[in-house]
Amino acid sequence: MLRSCATRLRALAVPPARRPRAVWRLFSSEKVIPKDYGLPNPSWSKDLRLLFDQFMKKCEDGSWKRLPSYRQNPTQTLKDFQTRFVDPRFMNEEQVSKAQQFSRSLEEGLGFEYVMFYNKVEKKMVCLFQGGLHLQGVPGFVHGGAIATIIDVTTGKCAIAEGIAMTANLNIDYKKPIPLCSVVVVTSQLSKTEGRKLFISCTVQSVDEKTLYTQATALFIKLDPDKRLT
Amino acid sequence: MLRSCATRLRALAVPPARRPRAVWRLFSSEKVIPKDYGLPNPSWSKDLRLLFDQFMKKCEDGSWKRLPSYRQNPTQTLKDFQTRFVDPRFMNEEQVSKAQQFSRSLEEGLGFEYVMFYNKVEKKMVCLFQGGLHLQGVPGFVHGGAIATIIDVTTGKCAIAEGIAMTANLNIDYKKPIPLCSVVVVTSQLSKTEGRKLFISCTVQSVDEKTLYTQATALFIKLDPDKRLT
Repeated sequence: MLRSCATRLRALAVPPARRPRAVWRLFSSEKVIPKDYGLPNPSWSKDLRLLFDQFMKKCEDGSWKRLPSYRQNPTQTLKDFQTRFVDPRFMNEEQVSKAQQFSRSLEEGLGFEYVMFYNKVEKKMVCLFQGGLHLQGVPGFVHGGAIATIIDVTTGKCAIAEGIAMTANLNIDYKKPIPLCSVVVVTSQLSKTEGRKLFISCTVQSVDEKTLYTQATALFIKLDPDKRLT
Repeated sequence: MLRSCATRLRALAVPPARRPRAVWRLFSSEKVIPKDYGLPNPSWSKDLRLLFDQFMKKCEDGSWKRLPSYRQNPTQTLKDFQTRFVDPRFMNEEQVSKAQQFSRSLEEGLGFEYVMFYNKVEKKMVCLFQGGLHLQGVPGFVHGGAIATIIDVTTGKCAIAEGIAMTANLNIDYKKPIPLCSVVVVTSQLSKTEGRKLFISCTVQSVDEKTLYTQATALFIKLDPDKRLT
């Protein structure tokens, strides 16, 4: 379907730049297919591509699964979330339609390049992360806030596998600075659950696992469907 | 000087869009004045402007000082930092010249809009922060990683007032979600020092101080001039 659409666009001599970057609109059905950011792009380094290929191989027997990743929430997921959890005072339809997922809001290659893989049996989420030039903290190294963000994203996805949840605590030890544009492996695992509380551990390591850059614990709380966010 | 430059540009009918956004180049001297992002722009809400004006008044007697804020480090600061602390293996001149400060890397109004004020006697840093539409976490609210970032920035500036330092630990309690586009006040204060360790506390509150959104502690360590970052 995509290929046929692309062929029609070429036939109509529509230049690629005119087409929206993050969304493909199929003329025949008007169905929108959002761009999946958890797939390789030209900014990915050799290290990131190699690791991606290794994990894609692990997915073949079904033990691991790659997570798709979007800039905006799918419309239905968004509506369900709002109806269940958001106080109508905070529902600004226009704002929400224009909002973007923070970790996907920078341009290709300059911000957060990452892909996540989940192992359901082990309750483990692995994020392969390359921090671009616009994530700088001290000169030459990734900002502590950007590291906190990728930790929040990875532990968050690990939590959400158990139900809709929000971050209640992040406790992060920054052990070594991460050089800009290098690739690191963020591994998070559900340690224990207590009622609606989900305790998750997390490490950020070099690809060869010899360097531990960052270590963290996270506490997520599953949202109570009888309570609204205030 | 800036006004005369603008007048000349208008006289030459140079459209404003052609001028670089982050940098003003003065034709006469070729001196580059980087844009200070800690000043109001059209995306700032009434709340943020009012608070800014209040703090600017507090600066009049010299007890508080507004901090300028740039996307890139001034060249000399960068060189000094690299010479003193960065292992030559990590010095990629081309990368560093293209890198941008993470908290200033999103477009005007869509990311982190903030200004910081410092009280030297109280060792207190206040950051007035408006989180734009590209900082979204759960629909309608600011991402936990974006909150961690503004906390790291504010506590970090509080630490750097004591000497060049890097984040060693951030412990963040997320108490209430922060609605997108709202204005909050991030207050951080040096609690104690132990050798090269700097302990800093931080709160994120509503403008009326009635809502405590986030509470955090941070540990920064002053860099040892005899050791390189590895």
